[in-house]
Amino acid sequence: MISILPVTGLPEVRQGDDLAELVAASASLEHGDVVVVAQKVVSKAEGRVVRLDAFEPSARAVELANGERDPRELEAILRETRRVVRERAPLVIAETRHGFVCASAGIDHSNTADPDTLILLPLDPDASARRLRAGLRARAGVEVAVIVSDSFGRPFRQGTTDVALGVAGLTPLVDLRGQADRRGEPLRTTQVAVADEIAAAANLVRRGKDDGLPVVVVRGLEFGGDGTAAELVMPAELDLFR
Amino acid sequence: MISILPVTGLPEVRQGDDLAELVAASASLEHGDVVVVAQKVVSKAEGRVVRLDAFEPSARAVELANGERDPRELEAILRETRRVVRERAPLVIAETRHGFVCASAGIDHSNTADPDTLILLPLDPDASARRLRAGLRARAGVEVAVIVSDSFGRPFRQGTTDVALGVAGLTPLVDLRGQADRRGEPLRTTQVAVADEIAAAANLVRRGKDDGLPVVVVRGLEFGGDGTAAELVMPAELDLFR
Repeated sequence: MISILPVTGLPEVRQGDDLAELVAASASLEHGDVVVVAQKVVSKAEGRVVRLDAFEPSARAVELANGERDPRELEAILRETRRVVRERAPLVIAETRHGFVCASAGIDHSNTADPDTLILLPLDPDASARRLRAGLRARAGVEVAVIVSDSFGRPFRQGTTDVALGVAGLTPLVDLRGQADRRGEPLRTTQVAVADEIAAAANLVRRGKDDGLPVVVVRGLEFGGDGTAAELVMPAELDLFR
Repeated sequence: MISILPVTGLPEVRQGDDLAELVAASASLEHGDVVVVAQKVVSKAEGRVVRLDAFEPSARAVELANGERDPRELEAILRETRRVVRERAPLVIAETRHGFVCASAGIDHSNTADPDTLILLPLDPDASARRLRAGLRARAGVEVAVIVSDSFGRPFRQGTTDVALGVAGLTPLVDLRGQADRRGEPLRTTQVAVADEIAAAANLVRRGKDDGLPVVVVRGLEFGGDGTAAELVMPAELDLFR
């Protein structure tokens, strides 16, 4: 049996906060738990919050804003973007510096403490996950895995699902290549994105509202190993769906 | 708390089997449970299993098979396909008659009782889910929701995740439009594909092998309502990611 446990009582997270300390104080962690943390609080703790008025919009940002959105926000998005994948002004699907393809390069302006600020994705969410994992080992004395999650839209299907942006202490892809099915034939499905499935599972206890419940514990998984969420990024040349 | 419970002891499912009876005999269901059933056993019970030698490959099927795959299998795929979305022979990403975009139009040849047979998707997975739900009400006396799930690849990210092909007794998309966040500002994320997140969560207890554990119960969700998985299909003209 796998259990999905909300962690309640976490205070509002601010820049410089020791996230491991806050999580350890709020959650009763056990060895082998997977701690799923919403990207937003990781970004806040890491100071990835910027003021809109720090951005001078370029001509391209003004064009994309199309008079319907603050061009400074588009400028912030463009600075986090390696490549604009799709545009339907003022909406932008961007490939971030990490290689994630998502709306607005993952930038968020809701639920910040100040309406004139934006929350950017962590610079290196895998490193964020590793730091939190080490911090929980130190503060709570438990060996857990950590996933930094966010809600992403996707092609072909309606609605967002939560996915893993950062991973520590867990193999994000379970490779079935070479394993045979019960008849001894090779399996059609070769790799399962387990870290994304854990992120999605964790989101179920949030019932839509993510800011009030940023930390969720998934207990009873037996996936071990170690890897990075960077492994979940599909290289364009291998992407049959793209 | 949400629990993900594997249902063990289900016998091999064959055409004509009463799936509700088999599930009711193996699972201890409770009111409000979500019963997640792998598409493959639903298709088997519904007789959506075809023999390869029933297909006479067209020139297009031979072309797509590219000498690397049985052209009769490609012919079967084409007959389930409304539109070939991408092709890299012998691999095909197809839009099925239901509107799902997936590899090989969802056709599977592994784990069938006979290696010369193929398993097609159910003709109407939402109807399959509704029948199973009604059957479980009759056989087990419980009001549950049902999801028919399958493992799909997706653009931009490595690995498959399980998604909902059929839904009964559950709202598959939780619409947050109009809801405000804690500061009173509109939320950026407007719809959450809860049914896909439940399907993904259920897959976590399978640890990769789906045929040995086709039925999973997800307990403790409080999403009610009623809808269809057809609502999860993104109309092309609205799909900013496509």
